[in-house]
Amino acid sequence: MLRLEQGLLLECGQHLAPLDIAYRTYGTLSAARDNAILVCHALTGDQYLGDTHPLTGKPGWWSRMVGPGLPIDTDRFHVICINVLGGCMGSTGPRSIGPRGEPWGTEFPPITIRDMVRAQALLLDHFGIERLFAAIGGSMGGMQVLEWVATYPERVFAAMPIATAPFHSAQNIAFNEVSRQAIFADPEWHAGRYWAHDAVPARGLAVARMMAHITYLSEEALTRKFGRRVRRDPKASAGSTPGGTIGTASLFGEMFEVESYLRHQGSSFVRRFDANSYLTITRAMDYFDLSAEHEGDLSAPFRGVATRFCVVSFSSDWLFPTSQSRLMARALNRAGVNVSFVEIESDRGHDAFLLDEPDLDRTVRGFINGAAEHAGLKAAH
Amino acid sequence: MLRLEQGLLLECGQHLAPLDIAYRTYGTLSAARDNAILVCHALTGDQYLGDTHPLTGKPGWWSRMVGPGLPIDTDRFHVICINVLGGCMGSTGPRSIGPRGEPWGTEFPPITIRDMVRAQALLLDHFGIERLFAAIGGSMGGMQVLEWVATYPERVFAAMPIATAPFHSAQNIAFNEVSRQAIFADPEWHAGRYWAHDAVPARGLAVARMMAHITYLSEEALTRKFGRRVRRDPKASAGSTPGGTIGTASLFGEMFEVESYLRHQGSSFVRRFDANSYLTITRAMDYFDLSAEHEGDLSAPFRGVATRFCVVSFSSDWLFPTSQSRLMARALNRAGVNVSFVEIESDRGHDAFLLDEPDLDRTVRGFINGAAEHAGLKAAH
Repeated sequence: MLRLEQGLLLECGQHLAPLDIAYRTYGTLSAARDNAILVCHALTGDQYLGDTHPLTGKPGWWSRMVGPGLPIDTDRFHVICINVLGGCMGSTGPRSIGPRGEPWGTEFPPITIRDMVRAQALLLDHFGIERLFAAIGGSMGGMQVLEWVATYPERVFAAMPIATAPFHSAQNIAFNEVSRQAIFADPEWHAGRYWAHDAVPARGLAVARMMAHITYLSEEALTRKFGRRVRRDPKASAGSTPGGTIGTASLFGEMFEVESYLRHQGSSFVRRFDANSYLTITRAMDYFDLSAEHEGDLSAPFRGVATRFCVVSFSSDWLFPTSQSRLMARALNRAGVNVSFVEIESDRGHDAFLLDEPDLDRTVRGFINGAAEHAGLKAAH
Repeated sequence: MLRLEQGLLLECGQHLAPLDIAYRTYGTLSAARDNAILVCHALTGDQYLGDTHPLTGKPGWWSRMVGPGLPIDTDRFHVICINVLGGCMGSTGPRSIGPRGEPWGTEFPPITIRDMVRAQALLLDHFGIERLFAAIGGSMGGMQVLEWVATYPERVFAAMPIATAPFHSAQNIAFNEVSRQAIFADPEWHAGRYWAHDAVPARGLAVARMMAHITYLSEEALTRKFGRRVRRDPKASAGSTPGGTIGTASLFGEMFEVESYLRHQGSSFVRRFDANSYLTITRAMDYFDLSAEHEGDLSAPFRGVATRFCVVSFSSDWLFPTSQSRLMARALNRAGVNVSFVEIESDRGHDAFLLDEPDLDRTVRGFINGAAEHAGLKAAH
């Protein structure tokens, strides 16, 4: 973790200091400092990309993609993953102590994707890394990749935005807003001061996560995984329960497997994530719009940019549909940028970028190796 | 409203008595009692199909479809709309007084779509209507139409299931489950006994409605209606607020128009709907599966059925996609049933069946008039 006392001037005008930046690195930075790959994490991700998560004990979220001999080969590249500004795994966020000597909570300043990127740039400055060999990320991580090139075009040699979009759509915003309202509706949220009440808005955050999780999966994936299979409802079998028959939402003492799966997703999430971080980060995503400062022209931020792009989407992703990635690829084309666009056939929806998708592995490996050759990087030692 | 003291034996095995059935009728029942059209309402609909709603003061939910000279012509047909069993507009439901002399609440027995249909059949018996000329409905109303023919094939001459499915998909169930969890998470729900606390789980029910509302609209419709347009956040302009900057989910004192729209949808809904009814009815939808008793064979319930079908879907409906309607139409075909299938091009999503869609009007008018001719009904008097 790096602490920068000088802090960061945010887009909203507030000056955030000190600034903590929590990160993990994998592989070795070359003497020329030219082999750094920044992997940007998604909304609920964190810097534990390649090693065991300290809270869940689970393997890193992209450990199948990043490691020795893997598509992002740590024998060759120095991989950096940074907990985003506003997060809750060590970087400055709503849980950090603010000017009043207590957690910022809801008084944490509103941040943007660009603020996240500028905080990451400060860490690279600290490492003396002038230029990233590559920036790669999925979903909100892809937004950061796009913002990296838009903000620091000369600092990114190759960029791979995966399953993302150049702006948040009305439907994206709508889902985020409902998840925020679910958190606000939880009395344990205490207007954001739950820490002061030894409370956690667990039920509201769980509902938010459950809803979001549906949007990460395709209908096909849900049907294949669960269909309409039912299982015994533990509550119902426990006899009379708060809520009774409807309360456990069970009929004949059964519940659908997809229900118990979502409940598990919700309850496990609240053990590792902070509600105010969820509010802060979803808001940053909603405000993301690369064309906002350019009268809606998505090409403008990328004119004359030398960064090589590979834009990746998944055919069954309805949260960040292929149409959005294609829009981005076309705008890059119009800007004269070197861009390739790959739609990967998958029926697993948005989450495909986190799952075992051989086509994604091949695409990542091919793009990185091709770019490395172009950059004249020496092969794995 | 009809009260049947003998009540109804439910599929779950419980005997529900007395049974109240609230309904509205439009037009005149012919002497031969052969011109009755049953219109079945959706999850949050009710019997106020063609006249002003007593709680909202708004026009009937299908007043543009049903009336003198309209596609469902009340100069010619006798239209009946019945508040579903488990509802909250007069028919027996969780809000009714149960055996303990207090509202049933969550102890209201779990009901099924077939239970709803069997309650409706009792009302028709009371009217001496042996056979419906037609049964028509969208979404859950369409499930009732399908169940009507499956349960009482000889009692329905023509059937028009619109924007519906022969069973609830894993994704449908998942969204319903999250909406239920949102209600359970509201402390004002009081394990379903909110009436005893002079409370209403308004925030949980509003969150449930907000989420459901997103699924009723297409991404295109949301983009066209709201895009990324922002407006002043009333909370933010009111200065410091509970939740502060993140709490109002606003940046620079703005909010997205789609957010204020959804908040309005949520808050207006809770004034007219009962939370326990929402739980009861969503559960009934989740358990709907026409093939459940037939080893997955969707054709089985319809073999040898003389009812004429017109199955209707909307191209941008992702909650009850065209693929589900096509599945139903093909199963009816395999069963040798007279069925036509129409996919209406619309970018308004699932809600299209409630909106001004000229193609839907033409389809409804054409199917009804054609069937009337076939039935030898005399023309409008």
